[in-house]
Amino acid sequence: MVWLYGTHACMAALLNPRRKVEGLWCTDSVFQKLEEEGITRESFFLAKNSKNTIQIVDKKVLNSLLKGEVPHQGIVLKAQTLPTEPLEFLKEAEAPNQIVLLLDHVTDSQNVGSILRLCLAFHVEALVMTRAHAPSENGGMAKSASGAFESVPRCIVSNLAEALRTLKSFGFWCVGLSEEATQPLRSLDLRGKIALVMGSEGEGLRPLTQDLCDFEAFLPTSSKFSTLSVTTATAIALYEAFLAKNPLSL
Amino acid sequence: MVWLYGTHACMAALLNPRRKVEGLWCTDSVFQKLEEEGITRESFFLAKNSKNTIQIVDKKVLNSLLKGEVPHQGIVLKAQTLPTEPLEFLKEAEAPNQIVLLLDHVTDSQNVGSILRLCLAFHVEALVMTRAHAPSENGGMAKSASGAFESVPRCIVSNLAEALRTLKSFGFWCVGLSEEATQPLRSLDLRGKIALVMGSEGEGLRPLTQDLCDFEAFLPTSSKFSTLSVTTATAIALYEAFLAKNPLSL
Repeated sequence: MVWLYGTHACMAALLNPRRKVEGLWCTDSVFQKLEEEGITRESFFLAKNSKNTIQIVDKKVLNSLLKGEVPHQGIVLKAQTLPTEPLEFLKEAEAPNQIVLLLDHVTDSQNVGSILRLCLAFHVEALVMTRAHAPSENGGMAKSASGAFESVPRCIVSNLAEALRTLKSFGFWCVGLSEEATQPLRSLDLRGKIALVMGSEGEGLRPLTQDLCDFEAFLPTSSKFSTLSVTTATAIALYEAFLAKNPLSL
Repeated sequence: MVWLYGTHACMAALLNPRRKVEGLWCTDSVFQKLEEEGITRESFFLAKNSKNTIQIVDKKVLNSLLKGEVPHQGIVLKAQTLPTEPLEFLKEAEAPNQIVLLLDHVTDSQNVGSILRLCLAFHVEALVMTRAHAPSENGGMAKSASGAFESVPRCIVSNLAEALRTLKSFGFWCVGLSEEATQPLRSLDLRGKIALVMGSEGEGLRPLTQDLCDFEAFLPTSSKFSTLSVTTATAIALYEAFLAKNPLSL
């Protein structure tokens, strides 16, 4: 079970047929917005087969549901977590130009949420994370994903090294981003099936992860201050891969 | 007066000779880290000429100083705000390859902080914001800037259109980022003096701002979900400009 909040995150969840919603609390003004989107008391009841209908409440009730002051923007959902995908679904996909993104121990929920939003913007096939040392689905993550949480396939694996070996057997080239790399990302050919691997802020990629990458690359920055946040580095790397795969967009 | 918090933000403030610090509260473990960086009770007293010395307190005291639960990471500073620069300082700078970043009504402090961090990473000469419809210096902004707040020159102007006209008279080409533009950013020549203009999330650039831009460009994304956060779009745009100006980094 997960508590979702924030307008974009909740709206996307309500419109996602795969998302089982068990309760909806919102302010009067958000209720009017929902109705404009075609989400009425009746449609919610019918679509989600919920025992609860929409409950119109004031902001204090929303804070008490979430047990704290969070930026709920006037709406809270109680929902079941979304199912994840087995890595094997990437074997069947025949598109020759896929991007898969792997996170090596990125632990901050807000970062993972922002990265999910990037995955949708740059057409990433799946986000692969480890079960340990990574956050599980939560409301803050979905809020940061701004609706993208509902539509980006996620694979949760026990072992990232094993996942990299599997992806290689599916025909993916593994590209790790690392400040210590000697070639800039733009110098690589990013066409074809690419598995992009991002390390945690501070620690970077773990040695075994690095060993398994076919290529390592860095993003050029000013020497005065080289660190980018993991979200920023991911944004730029996905943008480069997206442009390589979609040359007609230029 | 401003309350700063967070390790990176406070450490950078303490090491910045232009920053007048009037009080320092931290936990015992952070105090040890400060000493490792050469910031002792004596050096703090001498360097900052403060009546207060370092006060070692527990986390509850830090929360009460900040009037709420914020991610202070064990350190809080009371400091004077940093002076800003007049736009005219960009006239004198003779480097032919400058980037200046202008924000058109970006109102979220955390976004502005993250953008300041990007300015340092991609060697931006100055960040230009309006006095109204933009956040003034605050602790959350400095925390998101992760230390970069202390070193990126900021210009606060009454009127962004006027600022664009002034920058043009200084020899800058004005490039606005807009989802409605017809050419991708990568197709532009970004060498020379470039003033990059970012609009607010949702609203984009205001019409008068658009009129004053010499060029407008977009960032290609998947058609399924085109919106990037303002921080992400800024990151990618600055990366493109940085690479154009530093071809040897490729």
